[in-house]
Amino acid sequence: MTKLWANSGDSHLVEPENLFTERLSPELAERMPRSVKDEDGSWETVYVDGQEFRRRMPRGMLVDPETGQTMNEKAPGANDPVLRLKDLDEEGIWAELMFPSIGIWSHSIRTPELLAAGCRAVNDWAIEFQSHSPRYVCTATIPLLRVEDAVAEIERAAELGFKAAFLPVTPPSTELGDFHREGWEPVWAALEETGTVLAYHIGTEPHEADTTNGIYYRGPGGAVLNYVETTYGGQRAVSKMIASGVFDRHPDLKVIVSEGGATWGPFIADRLDEAYRQHGAVVRPKLSRLPSEFLYSNVWASFQHDRSAVQACAAMGWQNVTWGSDYPHFEGTYGHTQKTLHELFDDVDPAVSHRVRLGAFKELFPHVPDPPTEG
Amino acid sequence: MTKLWANSGDSHLVEPENLFTERLSPELAERMPRSVKDEDGSWETVYVDGQEFRRRMPRGMLVDPETGQTMNEKAPGANDPVLRLKDLDEEGIWAELMFPSIGIWSHSIRTPELLAAGCRAVNDWAIEFQSHSPRYVCTATIPLLRVEDAVAEIERAAELGFKAAFLPVTPPSTELGDFHREGWEPVWAALEETGTVLAYHIGTEPHEADTTNGIYYRGPGGAVLNYVETTYGGQRAVSKMIASGVFDRHPDLKVIVSEGGATWGPFIADRLDEAYRQHGAVVRPKLSRLPSEFLYSNVWASFQHDRSAVQACAAMGWQNVTWGSDYPHFEGTYGHTQKTLHELFDDVDPAVSHRVRLGAFKELFPHVPDPPTEG
Repeated sequence: MTKLWANSGDSHLVEPENLFTERLSPELAERMPRSVKDEDGSWETVYVDGQEFRRRMPRGMLVDPETGQTMNEKAPGANDPVLRLKDLDEEGIWAELMFPSIGIWSHSIRTPELLAAGCRAVNDWAIEFQSHSPRYVCTATIPLLRVEDAVAEIERAAELGFKAAFLPVTPPSTELGDFHREGWEPVWAALEETGTVLAYHIGTEPHEADTTNGIYYRGPGGAVLNYVETTYGGQRAVSKMIASGVFDRHPDLKVIVSEGGATWGPFIADRLDEAYRQHGAVVRPKLSRLPSEFLYSNVWASFQHDRSAVQACAAMGWQNVTWGSDYPHFEGTYGHTQKTLHELFDDVDPAVSHRVRLGAFKELFPHVPDPPTEG
Repeated sequence: MTKLWANSGDSHLVEPENLFTERLSPELAERMPRSVKDEDGSWETVYVDGQEFRRRMPRGMLVDPETGQTMNEKAPGANDPVLRLKDLDEEGIWAELMFPSIGIWSHSIRTPELLAAGCRAVNDWAIEFQSHSPRYVCTATIPLLRVEDAVAEIERAAELGFKAAFLPVTPPSTELGDFHREGWEPVWAALEETGTVLAYHIGTEPHEADTTNGIYYRGPGGAVLNYVETTYGGQRAVSKMIASGVFDRHPDLKVIVSEGGATWGPFIADRLDEAYRQHGAVVRPKLSRLPSEFLYSNVWASFQHDRSAVQACAAMGWQNVTWGSDYPHFEGTYGHTQKTLHELFDDVDPAVSHRVRLGAFKELFPHVPDPPTEG
């Protein structure tokens, strides 16, 4: 079976436990999130920024329900930049857009200075990770409690060598409001001016440290319904930017939504157009192009297993569909990447296959080299 | 230009104002929703089931923001079964699945007996409307405060000649819970046994009479964002049924989601499968087939203008895509139906064109005759 290489628009870093104690002053490090587990291991107390939260240990995210392995046991390269390349080579994953591990660490911090210092520490660590290989494209974590902190960190990150910045799909609750509000304008400007790709990852709605994010449904089918629900936040985030005219003001700003699937792109494009035209009399602001044109030109999306995502590129004309592994997470393709890639692409036009596996990603990150066997 | 005929999976009835006073006892009629407008016409007081709500007049839904015309002025056939056929013939709309006008009338009723009587009155009126033409497929309105009332009205409606029953995408708040809960089982059984198509219409989440439904966002792009948001309720409704195993227990139950677009079908199908397989260890109940197979076989969807919806059928293999006019609503195609149909279908494989315009609808409602020029 020929090895198919693919760039991944959705991969994850797992930050080391001592990251904050090693990189922040003791006064700040002490206020960063830390967990004390109960003796029986079923609950923990999380201390963060002077607050205290009790919560049940979130086993599903950290332990493979099939094998009982932790993420680092299942994927030893998850947090080792040298071992990781071995995993990637075996799987056929070439370059990766890498997100911080989605966790409790930032959402419960209420002190802007503390959040900004925490983000700098995470980013200083991530850029070291990135330096191990040109295949690593790490996302910078951006503090969003104050717009001036966000802009400063976007600019600092770009100077450090970051090519992408991670934002949650919904901002924390502040007077800035949601992403369609005017207050975020300096952030969009800073991203565009520094040539930084804005990377949304789904499932990142702000939540308290004692709330397990992503539990919308319980009862029959709950696990499936919760997974489906996660996709909508990414669709909303780009809809807000398009509808409020962000891409009219910042035509060079590029956005990727990771792990939300990709077939929603043409769907939401059509729906935005229908809203814009059929409710035209009450739509503000007016846009210079149809909403769908902004979505098709400024927005990218990554998927893992979806058969229809390839057709969103081949038959619906959205060129910005990129595959993603979600390595090392359990809903990703680790352990069966080649099987997945062959199922997705063996019967597909070679140009479409190349675009979805490699080309769409490369357009976002042209500095990344090509894989050994495909240009 | 050749006339293209299309069946509509999404059209609306506008109930007459005297419906309840003519068909209910004075004691019951008095408790049904009625509105008293303020002198300046900007606010109204709604009285319903012993409650009193103040609300701003919802102009956008009832008056065309472009022309200032009311719905009945713009589309005189909206509520006249004879004039309506003239409108349909001019537009090229053949048969219609017709929903009650989405309004405040049911959601604020808290007394099960009153709601059941109101639904019977609406349905007795709608079946008279349906009797004017075999092209009219009216949906029966179902009272959901008590499951026994719902089952009784589904059975009564089927005997009256209804082929479809309208449900809101989320049930009212009762101890029955949401649609993935076990308590709804008798409703699914009654629909399947009577051969009644379950018709969800988007934008029908329960809400109080003083709340304008569908306002999720204000500020820049708000009108566009609110329209996008409406689609998710329909996707959730069918996801709940699939994930909780409804179609395993009721394989002959057919569902249509109207006005939510159609390209979401293959997208949600893939996402349900990814959830079901990648989180398999924690998924309950187990299903006999992949979720996508249930979606592709048991679920239909209607769209108005979406270019990508035709490709959801042509390139993604979902056969259950049906066009819809949304007549006489302002976001629909009334006044430009032939232009829309030609734009959508002129360059499409004739078999796909026929399926989306006529065949998919006909599979749901085989009793409907064929249009004059196309079988």
